[in-house]
Amino acid sequence: MTHPAPNDPLVILMPSGRRGRVAPGTSLLEAARQMGVEIESICGGRLTCGKCKIQIEEGVFQKHGITSGKAHVSPPGAEERELLENMRATNYRLSCSCYVEGDILAFVPEEARAHKQVIRKAAKERLIDVNPAVRQVYVKVEEAKLGEHRGDWGRLQSALAEQWQLEHLTIDLQALRNLQAALRKGKWKVTVTVWQDREVIDVRPGYQEGAYGLAVDIGSTTVAAYLCDLRTGELLATESLMNPQVKYGEDLMSRISYAMMNDDGLDKMHKAIIDSLNTLAARAAKEGGIHSRHIHELVVVGNTTMTHLFLGISPVEIGGAPFALATRDSVDVKARELGLKLHPGANVHVLPAEAGHVGADNVGVLIAEEPYHQEEVVLAVDVGTNAEIILGNREWMFSASSPTGPAFEGAQITYGMRAAPGAIERVRIDPVSKEPRFRVIGEERWSDEWPTGAHITVEDQPKHLASGICGSGIIEVVAEMLTAGVILPDGRFNPTLEHERLVWKERKGMYVLATGDQTTTGEPLVVTQMDVRNIQLAKAALYAGAKLLMIRAGIDKVDRVVLAGAFGSYIDPKHAMILGLIPDCELERVVAVGNAAGDGARIALLNKAKRQEAVDISRWTRYIETAVDPLFQDEFVAAMHIPHASDAFPHLEGLLPDAENVPMVKPRERRTRATA
Amino acid sequence: MTHPAPNDPLVILMPSGRRGRVAPGTSLLEAARQMGVEIESICGGRLTCGKCKIQIEEGVFQKHGITSGKAHVSPPGAEERELLENMRATNYRLSCSCYVEGDILAFVPEEARAHKQVIRKAAKERLIDVNPAVRQVYVKVEEAKLGEHRGDWGRLQSALAEQWQLEHLTIDLQALRNLQAALRKGKWKVTVTVWQDREVIDVRPGYQEGAYGLAVDIGSTTVAAYLCDLRTGELLATESLMNPQVKYGEDLMSRISYAMMNDDGLDKMHKAIIDSLNTLAARAAKEGGIHSRHIHELVVVGNTTMTHLFLGISPVEIGGAPFALATRDSVDVKARELGLKLHPGANVHVLPAEAGHVGADNVGVLIAEEPYHQEEVVLAVDVGTNAEIILGNREWMFSASSPTGPAFEGAQITYGMRAAPGAIERVRIDPVSKEPRFRVIGEERWSDEWPTGAHITVEDQPKHLASGICGSGIIEVVAEMLTAGVILPDGRFNPTLEHERLVWKERKGMYVLATGDQTTTGEPLVVTQMDVRNIQLAKAALYAGAKLLMIRAGIDKVDRVVLAGAFGSYIDPKHAMILGLIPDCELERVVAVGNAAGDGARIALLNKAKRQEAVDISRWTRYIETAVDPLFQDEFVAAMHIPHASDAFPHLEGLLPDAENVPMVKPRERRTRATA
Repeated sequence: MTHPAPNDPLVILMPSGRRGRVAPGTSLLEAARQMGVEIESICGGRLTCGKCKIQIEEGVFQKHGITSGKAHVSPPGAEERELLENMRATNYRLSCSCYVEGDILAFVPEEARAHKQVIRKAAKERLIDVNPAVRQVYVKVEEAKLGEHRGDWGRLQSALAEQWQLEHLTIDLQALRNLQAALRKGKWKVTVTVWQDREVIDVRPGYQEGAYGLAVDIGSTTVAAYLCDLRTGELLATESLMNPQVKYGEDLMSRISYAMMNDDGLDKMHKAIIDSLNTLAARAAKEGGIHSRHIHELVVVGNTTMTHLFLGISPVEIGGAPFALATRDSVDVKARELGLKLHPGANVHVLPAEAGHVGADNVGVLIAEEPYHQEEVVLAVDVGTNAEIILGNREWMFSASSPTGPAFEGAQITYGMRAAPGAIERVRIDPVSKEPRFRVIGEERWSDEWPTGAHITVEDQPKHLASGICGSGIIEVVAEMLTAGVILPDGRFNPTLEHERLVWKERKGMYVLATGDQTTTGEPLVVTQMDVRNIQLAKAALYAGAKLLMIRAGIDKVDRVVLAGAFGSYIDPKHAMILGLIPDCELERVVAVGNAAGDGARIALLNKAKRQEAVDISRWTRYIETAVDPLFQDEFVAAMHIPHASDAFPHLEGLLPDAENVPMVKPRERRTRATA
Repeated sequence: MTHPAPNDPLVILMPSGRRGRVAPGTSLLEAARQMGVEIESICGGRLTCGKCKIQIEEGVFQKHGITSGKAHVSPPGAEERELLENMRATNYRLSCSCYVEGDILAFVPEEARAHKQVIRKAAKERLIDVNPAVRQVYVKVEEAKLGEHRGDWGRLQSALAEQWQLEHLTIDLQALRNLQAALRKGKWKVTVTVWQDREVIDVRPGYQEGAYGLAVDIGSTTVAAYLCDLRTGELLATESLMNPQVKYGEDLMSRISYAMMNDDGLDKMHKAIIDSLNTLAARAAKEGGIHSRHIHELVVVGNTTMTHLFLGISPVEIGGAPFALATRDSVDVKARELGLKLHPGANVHVLPAEAGHVGADNVGVLIAEEPYHQEEVVLAVDVGTNAEIILGNREWMFSASSPTGPAFEGAQITYGMRAAPGAIERVRIDPVSKEPRFRVIGEERWSDEWPTGAHITVEDQPKHLASGICGSGIIEVVAEMLTAGVILPDGRFNPTLEHERLVWKERKGMYVLATGDQTTTGEPLVVTQMDVRNIQLAKAALYAGAKLLMIRAGIDKVDRVVLAGAFGSYIDPKHAMILGLIPDCELERVVAVGNAAGDGARIALLNKAKRQEAVDISRWTRYIETAVDPLFQDEFVAAMHIPHASDAFPHLEGLLPDAENVPMVKPRERRTRATA
């Protein structure tokens, strides 16, 4: 390359505004490269992929120092015109075959930029740089000829090194098996799929783009899959299904027990999740208009028990102290080794874990929310059977796992059920009348708008009557019972309240949330004292975990609360705070971000640098073992009251009943007293 | 480590005679390490493996500057005494727990030296350094404890780095699946099997040594397997069987055709060889007293078609010009990927090839014979359906493949058969009487010692009558017919010879080698004109190949001829030279080395450095394509006569009949005339 002369043509590329002089006859693709503007190209300038589009601006551009943009590039040939046939604007060219003849002002459209970004809805709206582990390149390979003995793979290696600077590559046996036929069918031009710039995983004849990836979040209950185009980053399909392991145990401990008690327990649960992923992949592929054989990579997150079972590793050690993982590292393994029916050369990447009870799903939340890049202190909680809690900012980061139990998911609740049609998900109780109204999933009207009486038309009937109460419903009903004075801060039903909704049986109260004519069974739907106690235990565990981290970090308030997970998406921040799930914070700074773990998987799928970040951050984050921390027990006890007896909630002022009769006790003071 | 002081104890290690001063209290294992003497240890000084034996010489060693050897080491403890229980001599100690207290003279016995050598019978007797890709180390791993989150694999990584300086290791998924159970069963002490110092492929509880490897030579006809102890290098078992692909085609071209003509042809032949290797591995393991699940590595050689079929790669491209290989490189792939039932983490290493028709088997011959390390010019030929020919020395190396056809293997010969009981393998013809005598495989007596007449006892009868003639027999009979004047140098039966053994049918002669009472069928066994022609074609191809390389190298004589392969082991160098298989050479410098390709596989199995040498040498060797070289055709035509019409054979003087009537013509002269 010779240095451009001062009177060489000036090229200005918008929207970056980068400018530079290049020798006449330079292609705009090359000119852009010299100026540090990366334009996408799969075929490397062979007029095949049509990706390197650019718009030549015409007219007089004196303000840029250009007097005319017209005719300052070489005219397009027939091949180029064909590739540009469907473009609406006529000033489009392919930069690889558009040669500079004079000063040019050109615009690189979004879709032609090499490093694409996709927007992700998050606590803070965030861009994902599309820089996947799988990429495709189109190469022309030297033909085999007598007396030249490198072998086809040797020739392909040379071509990849010369045309794409890809060196020291290996080739997957499956790709090697197809190599010779592909080279000949493609007349020595092939599209090569490369993983991590180190292994060739596919060779297709001619120009055949298309690489797809699947990000999967294996939850104990639900498995969610996101199909992405690995070139554009586009989300093509989202699918989910129940984790089939549920039949071997509802919660993690019962699945671990199942693996311990049954010789084939691990094998059955492993096969069950693999089968499900094959189903999910096939469904997502169909929805996205591709075939699951075109899925070139799978990125997996899940709690540690889920990732162990997915990899066919016994979770038994996670079931008891000291909760040792087989591996905390990220894992790369061929999909076919696990029986996954994706592309034959596809890789599976499992994100790293942090500790025995803080798995790849939490690391997914971390890399999706990036609290470690922020100034403000973020508390992120992902509530499931266990709650994973992260607290920190760019300076420090703590994590913990807290045994909330399944109450928040509707288990251990008398009328608890999953979030399905018929489940009560919203509850309001009038503070004066103590009368409730609720909304069920699948019916838009609140229960007090449901028609009553003998002459209701079929269309007027609620689509679903109440058949149970799901996680968000149970939180709201307990919070509303508190604010309405139906229950007392210690969780007991108010013995001084006389109301037809408050029924006593054997000295235990229960609240009638739905009457018989509002339910599918015809029986009243009640919230019992035991239900309230279970919610108290769960919320105390969650709060105590968060509090423990705050104490360890030496802070007494958080700047932002992130509620991750499906559960977080449905609960109302106000009710969560009233109930005391989370510490005090400005209400508008409590945000639900949906399945952040799944987002983390998608981010790691689309951006390989994020995988290293995940490893680094998983080791940097300090994990606090709640199970053995005496402070946790103190905080847990103190957090049983509603709201907490131990901490002030200035942001709830006016929302809570008078709590004068509940003395404020700092657990650390209490502890000091106890040990004094 | 502090530097030893001048008055520190002096340690002298025999037989190397290395000496040095070490701080008192240093173990002899460590002292040896400091002095550059490597003593074997698997357990790393944990008094478990008992490998690091050393003999403490007692008495006065004034000539070494030591006045007393007695009591200059710490006394042995109970554990050490137990491990040394079975030693005959009482001066044995374990160097890891024998601490220096004063001047010491010690002897490191052969079996305790870290780099063992095994002796291999070869053209030149040669030592193989035992330095395998698979090694085992015993480590003590930190116990899992609460608040320590590395995971068991992380802890094992730390232990391997600290105790064995093994870093950046990965772990095979199968090993990861067993890791936690092994650590706990072994009470956090495990024996780790590492491949290429980069991947953990097995973790066994406690101290459990034993790593084995299988070297395999896949011939078109025969598959041979050698089971080795990877620690000692010892050959534990040798097994072989017919290549089951024979049923899809006798020779390479017919198997390639089978793959081309049948959609499932490749798959069938691939499965057939994999099944055979599983059988061979099981047999060899049984013979060696182990289980095939303990075979930790497989090294494979074979011609290019065989290695392609073994890897499940279509050999179709090898079947026609330009004879492109899928890959020329060595290949590493998990044995389980190919359906091999060895250790779950076992690797398969396929040696590299040189060119389309010179495969890993030839590279095996190269690394076994190492002509590239020698001064003298070596010609090595490996005769099968194709003959692979190597010519060279430390300065240069050529190779070629020559299409000899299967005549040397007994095919295309009227009474040809494989080397099996009943096959004629040796032939002598009396130059005067023209009467033959022969020996068949399975019967020690030559045919002229077989009893005749009516009253032979059963014990006296030959164990086998003649049922055919094998490769070495056909070479000997043609050579002997020539020296006896039964055939003429141009290969025709001598029309002037009248003898009852020479029978004419339709103007074509044939020679009765065995009479009806000497054969299993009761019919005479004859050698026909066509048989002689086929042998002429085969030997001309082989000779022309060797000659072509000599011309390219610019030499007219070779210093040594190496006959590789089973075939080479059975033919008599004199007959081979009379027939003109090989160029002139001192007869005693023509040596048969047996299955050198298989030896090469065994060497690569036992010594990982040899694998890189194989790659380097396979690329350095210049391959000459016989098929397109006009000189080859000239030499081929000129080599049809017996002996050659073109070259002098001074070393055969007196062994050949008068060849005056065959004019000597240099093929290059002829060629010059032809093109003039």
